[in-house]
Amino acid sequence: MVQYQQIDRTFAALADPTRRGVLERLGQGSATITELAEPFGISLTGMKKHVRVLEEAELVTTEKVGRSRRCILGPRRLDDVQHWIEDYREMIEARLDRFGELLERTKGESQ
Amino acid sequence: MVQYQQIDRTFAALADPTRRGVLERLGQGSATITELAEPFGISLTGMKKHVRVLEEAELVTTEKVGRSRRCILGPRRLDDVQHWIEDYREMIEARLDRFGELLERTKGESQ
Repeated sequence: MVQYQQIDRTFAALADPTRRGVLERLGQGSATITELAEPFGISLTGMKKHVRVLEEAELVTTEKVGRSRRCILGPRRLDDVQHWIEDYREMIEARLDRFGELLERTKGESQ
Repeated sequence: MVQYQQIDRTFAALADPTRRGVLERLGQGSATITELAEPFGISLTGMKKHVRVLEEAELVTTEKVGRSRRCILGPRRLDDVQHWIEDYREMIEARLDRFGELLERTKGESQ
């Protein structure tokens, strides 16, 4: 049984253009659910669901202020996500280098 | 209606530890579905589903060889994913800088 990790929740949260848009919007400053829903043209219920997914991934923090819920960017800095992507890219580069060396060697042998 | 993008498929594909493990394994060289399933202790059907998700995200390419299906890493280099993560981290840094400046100003005014 694989343990459910924070990095899984984060990748899943980022797999939706509206949720990525919400994070970009919150980078400009805090907003209520209503303020977030309006420019995306989606219902309050729909936006609440997106915000909930972002909250579970710690990408967003919310606070009840009077009758509305104010959203700000959460504590996640995506260090683990960035490291995974960088390691993956290095792995691909190394594989391409090995392939290139193999091609060179094959060329050398056929001359 | 939001257009379904390749970056969405990629984030979704990476949101699972088995699928990330498969990519790391394929970084060492090609493998059949059977070879991939065994170390993860999951069924062939389960591994086929994971590989299908990775194929749709162009992270894996498969080829039928005799009676088995050989998997290799696909053409995706994750440039778009890396850019998004980097932009997000810069946005967070900028926000923290603004917050720091505000704190400094408030401290200055109260002295």
